[in-house]
Amino acid sequence: MGLEFKSRVTLAHGAGGRETSEIVRRLFLERFRFTRVSGGVGLPELDDAASIPVGGGRHIVVTTDSYTVNPIFFPGGDIGKLAATGTINDLAVMGAIPVAVLDSIVVEEGFPLEHLDRIVNSIKDTLESENVALIGGDFKVMPRGSIDKIVITMTGIGILYTNRILLDSNVKPGDKIIVTGSIGEHGATILALQSGIDVESSSLRSDCQPLTRIMRRILDIGGVHAAKDPTRGGLAMALNEFAKKSNVGIIVWEDRIPIRDEVKMYSEMLGVDPLTLACEGRALLSVSPDKACEVLEELRSMGCSDAEIIGEAVDDYKGMVILKTVSGGLRVLEEPMGEIVPRIC
Amino acid sequence: MGLEFKSRVTLAHGAGGRETSEIVRRLFLERFRFTRVSGGVGLPELDDAASIPVGGGRHIVVTTDSYTVNPIFFPGGDIGKLAATGTINDLAVMGAIPVAVLDSIVVEEGFPLEHLDRIVNSIKDTLESENVALIGGDFKVMPRGSIDKIVITMTGIGILYTNRILLDSNVKPGDKIIVTGSIGEHGATILALQSGIDVESSSLRSDCQPLTRIMRRILDIGGVHAAKDPTRGGLAMALNEFAKKSNVGIIVWEDRIPIRDEVKMYSEMLGVDPLTLACEGRALLSVSPDKACEVLEELRSMGCSDAEIIGEAVDDYKGMVILKTVSGGLRVLEEPMGEIVPRIC
Repeated sequence: MGLEFKSRVTLAHGAGGRETSEIVRRLFLERFRFTRVSGGVGLPELDDAASIPVGGGRHIVVTTDSYTVNPIFFPGGDIGKLAATGTINDLAVMGAIPVAVLDSIVVEEGFPLEHLDRIVNSIKDTLESENVALIGGDFKVMPRGSIDKIVITMTGIGILYTNRILLDSNVKPGDKIIVTGSIGEHGATILALQSGIDVESSSLRSDCQPLTRIMRRILDIGGVHAAKDPTRGGLAMALNEFAKKSNVGIIVWEDRIPIRDEVKMYSEMLGVDPLTLACEGRALLSVSPDKACEVLEELRSMGCSDAEIIGEAVDDYKGMVILKTVSGGLRVLEEPMGEIVPRIC
Repeated sequence: MGLEFKSRVTLAHGAGGRETSEIVRRLFLERFRFTRVSGGVGLPELDDAASIPVGGGRHIVVTTDSYTVNPIFFPGGDIGKLAATGTINDLAVMGAIPVAVLDSIVVEEGFPLEHLDRIVNSIKDTLESENVALIGGDFKVMPRGSIDKIVITMTGIGILYTNRILLDSNVKPGDKIIVTGSIGEHGATILALQSGIDVESSSLRSDCQPLTRIMRRILDIGGVHAAKDPTRGGLAMALNEFAKKSNVGIIVWEDRIPIRDEVKMYSEMLGVDPLTLACEGRALLSVSPDKACEVLEELRSMGCSDAEIIGEAVDDYKGMVILKTVSGGLRVLEEPMGEIVPRIC
């Protein structure tokens, strides 16, 4: 227990699992006194985005993330599409409609302009498809050898769609846990490429896509208590954050978790648990039981054919995620630890 | 004229001078269709920050920048203080009071936690001194060799102090041009360190400091038409942006520009023009002539002993900056070109 504050930063500190939570707590949470504005959502929530009240009971929602994915081009997307999508999704799962982004691009001297061109076009296409404006940014170049190709940091600003913000801490016992599609495809794709496996010939590709439309329709139905996009640390991390922050238990039925065969195959080959692999186009939802079926049907009607109710929140097992395995056993699904996959997003 | 779209990114593309303007125009301005929200300040202004109307005639102001400075510790500050200060200043010179930031830190595997500790403390101290909250962020680690030490991207959010946003395009003929302190100290410090010169024994240090209090007092006096912090590209770039965006001429009296002897000495030694060296704690102001003396006196009473009226905006020479040299001659002060200094901020 507790953080052994090692003398140097390790890859695990940035992997999005337990060590990341620990270093963020130690460096920021326990240190900064001003961590929210006028009762908005701030640093202590460690949620997908923060909020700032702007008067009249309204909030803007804001998020920032750096994208360091390697390789920068991959089946299903590239670092530009990923940055725009990830930013949009962090807002969408808070219940916000994204309206604007600012980007900060740092590239290595000698980076091909043709690549930059493709990447910026991906950002443009993604933002335009969601009616999101690019209102500002920064552009820096670092000398050759001081940064590997390109890092994009993107900041998104949205407005709440309903007047309620979807916090990870709002899962209620009895809620059904829904995932909007099959999991782990982004993580499996990147990890396979990093391992030198040719995935072009397979059907494996990143699931990278904006969740705005899906979230809006689901919010129209109502009953959604919490939402989260399971990126770094995958489904295992997202479920644990729901359970810990809401102080509920979450039972997950292993055989209900939608995982495509290619993801299972590559995970086995690469020795990783698909439940820890990042998704970049899926949402995890906690929905009141009376609305869960309607939400699921709506998702499927929108083309999310793999959407599934994978579990439920309970009063027992507070703060824990319990996996009911295919063989009928129970096991604790821990938050991921260790390196998982560096530069996954 | 025009951008020769070379096949690879060069250091000059990121130096903050003419080539940066050109690549930003080509990659973003000419490409994106949605570049502002509801009539706010957006990408086309290429100003220090953008704005988003939030109802009731009010705007939030938002900015993002990546900090890649090398070395990461320097006399007068470090990359953490620089990031917090730079973010705060980009809001302050738009006429906004900073209220919140989000940071995204990308570090190299193996980076000493003790250094991270010092850097985060610098961010904390700077933000707390200005009553700015840290409301969120991101933390990523890149494998050894894929990033040099640390890059910090910081996003700042502020609210307008008066109801008016200070645009670079609002300089009026007749305005007096004021600089709030001696110039080039940040740039000279970093450049000297990069050149292997020991500056510790000299009095040279970065001028890195927040401008919030200064800007607030000056806005209380009134008459400020435009403000800008002369960072990358220095005073020469900032003056040119005023002149071009406002379509006025700006006459600057060389002998009035406050430059400390150490900066002159190091500039000469290093072969750079101090007018192109970054400041990180100075503002360039365009003030109506009836208020200029009052603003200058207020600045000096606040401890800005080197503050000076360095020139004036005129109807002639539209879009140009004209330097009246000490010898009495006139020369055009161009926007800087070429590499200037990489990783200066």
